[in-house]
Amino acid sequence: MSELKSFLQAKSNIIETELSKYLNTNEIPVILQQSMSYSVDAGGKRMRPILILATIEAFGQPSEKGLPVACAVEMVHTYSLIHDDLPAMDNDDYRRGKLTNHKVFGEGMAILAGDGLLTFAFEIMSKGTYEGVPIQGILQIVRELALYAGPKGMVGGQVADLEGENKTLSLEELQYIHQHKTADLLIFCVRAGAILAGASEKQLTSLTHYAQHIGMAFQIQDDILDVMGDQEKMGKQVGSDEKLNKSTYPSLLGMEESQRLLEEHVQSALQALAEAGVADSGVLASLARFIQQRDH
Amino acid sequence: MSELKSFLQAKSNIIETELSKYLNTNEIPVILQQSMSYSVDAGGKRMRPILILATIEAFGQPSEKGLPVACAVEMVHTYSLIHDDLPAMDNDDYRRGKLTNHKVFGEGMAILAGDGLLTFAFEIMSKGTYEGVPIQGILQIVRELALYAGPKGMVGGQVADLEGENKTLSLEELQYIHQHKTADLLIFCVRAGAILAGASEKQLTSLTHYAQHIGMAFQIQDDILDVMGDQEKMGKQVGSDEKLNKSTYPSLLGMEESQRLLEEHVQSALQALAEAGVADSGVLASLARFIQQRDH
Repeated sequence: MSELKSFLQAKSNIIETELSKYLNTNEIPVILQQSMSYSVDAGGKRMRPILILATIEAFGQPSEKGLPVACAVEMVHTYSLIHDDLPAMDNDDYRRGKLTNHKVFGEGMAILAGDGLLTFAFEIMSKGTYEGVPIQGILQIVRELALYAGPKGMVGGQVADLEGENKTLSLEELQYIHQHKTADLLIFCVRAGAILAGASEKQLTSLTHYAQHIGMAFQIQDDILDVMGDQEKMGKQVGSDEKLNKSTYPSLLGMEESQRLLEEHVQSALQALAEAGVADSGVLASLARFIQQRDH
Repeated sequence: MSELKSFLQAKSNIIETELSKYLNTNEIPVILQQSMSYSVDAGGKRMRPILILATIEAFGQPSEKGLPVACAVEMVHTYSLIHDDLPAMDNDDYRRGKLTNHKVFGEGMAILAGDGLLTFAFEIMSKGTYEGVPIQGILQIVRELALYAGPKGMVGGQVADLEGENKTLSLEELQYIHQHKTADLLIFCVRAGAILAGASEKQLTSLTHYAQHIGMAFQIQDDILDVMGDQEKMGKQVGSDEKLNKSTYPSLLGMEESQRLLEEHVQSALQALAEAGVADSGVLASLARFIQQRDH
């Protein structure tokens, strides 16, 4: 794991440097730029952009060409957190140990910072230079980000989540939420990396399955951590799902069965990864394990 | 003008039919689909999409190939209205004579409907088929929509507008707001139509000036109508700018000077249009006059 940790740290640094370059521009009104940067700089694991870079490297290719998409997806993820934290949604005061965007900049600015990050993501992606990638591939990635992040994807998942508050959900409903709210953006990341690396259709399909399973694993572990996690490491209150009467895997299936399902998704992810037959699957395999074992 | 009116009506019908096709999909959760459709169906003049189609036709080309972009831009415009109406922003209960989105669907859903429309716009645009348009042109249009609608464009203008509430603005600050909040998306429309029609760089520059001036004319007329308009025709309360202590052209320059500035922008638009040397500038010229003379 320590090898993976230094990989994650190194990639995280690269991504954060790139993100700052995009955001430090005087073409954006100062207060908006501050509000967008505040949440982008709030950190997190940078799991989504790292997944793009790691997928490109799994094909034995330099990951630099993934940086514009990596930054774009981190902005999309950040926008979704800003809007999700709003009083009309989850009403959270803290995120990663820091005040949420609207607590610092006000609700109106937080809504606009989210809108700005989402739109900026498409600008960054469509103006990026991608050495050796055919232009059809770039347009495909733009389309897929919109698809996986939009009303058929992540926004659809957010809606189902919002509608599901204070209701006991069926396992199927819970799966719909997690599929779209969490897994879809991870699927996009792996697919984008694979498309940029020139993957075959068969490889793209296998890697999509890999991403699907790590996405579900990610969310199950998230639910487990909300019950059993260490508040300090998490940077947010544990037990918040229960407080909001949110259905979770532990609440629907119990802790033991949730752990079993988590392990099953990780195994399925590893199998799909093996089927993809990439040049070096080491880091993507470690990432699947890391998602299961993370403590925050 | 009656020729223009039947042109506007015909194009409006085509655009509304296309919009319904995109929105009537069971891939979007029902309640989200209803919330998005509610605001898209609320009507309005469809000025932005019509501008795209009219620009393509000005080059003597069939406007059908502009439909995906036309629908995309109407969705972006609609998302901006939904978010702008929220309590944390303008706090409007009515829009075009109908309850605003959050009054019907709640604030959380209204935020997500806006997010959904914005993201869907990029899906529609990047998956459209554009007969005879080189793929570089399509990617350029995607990039320009993100640029003109994003933090350097429309979202930046919204931020300046939000920051400017309850303050007396300088004319320069007011112009910044209108340039970005209103003109930028109109500029995108004309540029997108021109790019799809294969305009030369010189034509693109002249048409950008045309759009810039009609954008400013549009906003000045908006400010004038908020003082002098007919409440019934407008479908919203007049005098709302004054109530919100918003700086407007009439409040900063007086009504007479505002009318003069409006006429100046229309003249400049017509001159830039003449310089563009398109095959048939008739409709674009009428649109500039229509913007000045509209009563809602």
